[in-house]
Amino acid sequence: MYRKEIKVIDCTIRDGGLMNEWQFSDEFVKAVYNSLVEAGVDYMEIGYKSSEKAYSREENGPWKFCDEKDLRRIVGENKTALKLSCMADIGRIDFADIQPKKESVVDMIRVACYVHQMDKAIALAEHCMDKGYETTINLMAVSKVNERDLDEALSDVAKSRVPALYIVDSFGSMYCEQIELLARKYFKAMPDKVIGIHAHNNMQLAFSNTITAIIEGCNLVDSTLLGLGRGAGNCHTETLLAFLKNPKFKLKPIFQVIQEHLIPLQQKIDWGYHIPYLITGMLNEHPKSAMEWMDSDEKYNFVKFYNSMTETPF
Amino acid sequence: MYRKEIKVIDCTIRDGGLMNEWQFSDEFVKAVYNSLVEAGVDYMEIGYKSSEKAYSREENGPWKFCDEKDLRRIVGENKTALKLSCMADIGRIDFADIQPKKESVVDMIRVACYVHQMDKAIALAEHCMDKGYETTINLMAVSKVNERDLDEALSDVAKSRVPALYIVDSFGSMYCEQIELLARKYFKAMPDKVIGIHAHNNMQLAFSNTITAIIEGCNLVDSTLLGLGRGAGNCHTETLLAFLKNPKFKLKPIFQVIQEHLIPLQQKIDWGYHIPYLITGMLNEHPKSAMEWMDSDEKYNFVKFYNSMTETPF
Repeated sequence: MYRKEIKVIDCTIRDGGLMNEWQFSDEFVKAVYNSLVEAGVDYMEIGYKSSEKAYSREENGPWKFCDEKDLRRIVGENKTALKLSCMADIGRIDFADIQPKKESVVDMIRVACYVHQMDKAIALAEHCMDKGYETTINLMAVSKVNERDLDEALSDVAKSRVPALYIVDSFGSMYCEQIELLARKYFKAMPDKVIGIHAHNNMQLAFSNTITAIIEGCNLVDSTLLGLGRGAGNCHTETLLAFLKNPKFKLKPIFQVIQEHLIPLQQKIDWGYHIPYLITGMLNEHPKSAMEWMDSDEKYNFVKFYNSMTETPF
Repeated sequence: MYRKEIKVIDCTIRDGGLMNEWQFSDEFVKAVYNSLVEAGVDYMEIGYKSSEKAYSREENGPWKFCDEKDLRRIVGENKTALKLSCMADIGRIDFADIQPKKESVVDMIRVACYVHQMDKAIALAEHCMDKGYETTINLMAVSKVNERDLDEALSDVAKSRVPALYIVDSFGSMYCEQIELLARKYFKAMPDKVIGIHAHNNMQLAFSNTITAIIEGCNLVDSTLLGLGRGAGNCHTETLLAFLKNPKFKLKPIFQVIQEHLIPLQQKIDWGYHIPYLITGMLNEHPKSAMEWMDSDEKYNFVKFYNSMTETPF
């Protein structure tokens, strides 16, 4: 699938940080950065922009906040073709926390919201644009949004200045036919905007749903190295680049950072496909109950977890 | 996806045996059998029918041969709704090794072949039908077959009495669009036959390719518990049943056998997605070089393996 408009956003640090409270070593973050530069990836989402009023520094590492000094310790002035992205959660950041682009090495701020927060997300995203950033809105948990609310949200984005909107399968609960339906709906509502895909791997469909979205015309594509991310993780950067075949992408630096940094991390943090994540995915539920289960002594008692989620003796 | 014609063939023992030379304990095989019966799965492929002239008993466990006495030790007379299947490889079995159905608890014999063996496969499959068995032909490694040879093979099957043919992605190298093309080609060549899908997970697409095949009308669907199978493994039975939603299927017995038997086995045998399997999949190559790599001390030197496979310094 060669289409030069496709941009890959590697979210390894941002989404992976949900598994370790963004307590990555500088060495790890630098290795990811260097490999993405070498591999020709378009964007690195290096963390969240968050207010210290919302989260404590004691519980969260630097990539929950993405202060300029922390960023520059890794990327310097970032004189590379790799653009840097941060995510901002509605309600976890003030407008005043967004500094002018000319003072920052960040290129893009992606605003994450639930459907009832869409008006606030548009306002924040347009504020980021006014400060000089590229921006997107990432409408989370779309698998739980009813049709009327979704249509209204899409109409609001269509009328806004925000150039890009994501389909986000937060619960990893969607199949190809649902991705197709959403992609067509998004494009119909906003033919001039760029549409993105962010998929989770609860049912081992993150990569294939990403392919489906690409076939439907989505040009912003999220992935993480070895799928590192919350719970079952994400679409893998290495499978995605292997599929895209765009000559600008190089696989070797990706394999290198995986063998040197992701494989050792996998000994400490257990992300990826596990039965409890399948169960929340198939039930279209938030993975937090599965993540708690995976942290408990009953991790491998799948039947008990399934019973607790379905509340049925059958 | 509810379609009552869809039949699930669990190949855990047959395909999984490629990872341990079919040296499963009777307890393991019985547990798989019992769980499939309880779960309402349609077929259990319990092993290969092979000639002792082709394989040694010392190197291979009983499920490489599937003698009647071994089968009955597990299933008795199999007075259940679960049908039993064995696979027969062309060149590894004589016609004389196929006993009459009335002397066997096996219900189905699936003939596996490469495209140049199709005439022999049809002859063996029709021989199995004459002996009283259900049968299919599983045309392996179709991702390496050129269009002319494939069209001729399909034409031969169309003219035969064999009722079913499989699309087999032996190398785990195919994407949804290739599955769609093949499914449409198979159906066009033989509108009255049943088409099956057997997918491998090298690129994490075994389940999604199976869904694509189902959407295209394939009604014989292979899977294994927790994906146990050669190299990257197979489409997972648990994700497949969760998707199918047919009320005859029960997930709980599947989760039970996974937690009690597959998870402990996973500590000993390392199947599933790994970078070397991705590399052979993306290159459309047999996984044997990746399997050897995964057994070596250099298992995690992905860059070296990639270099050896691509023979390029870039």
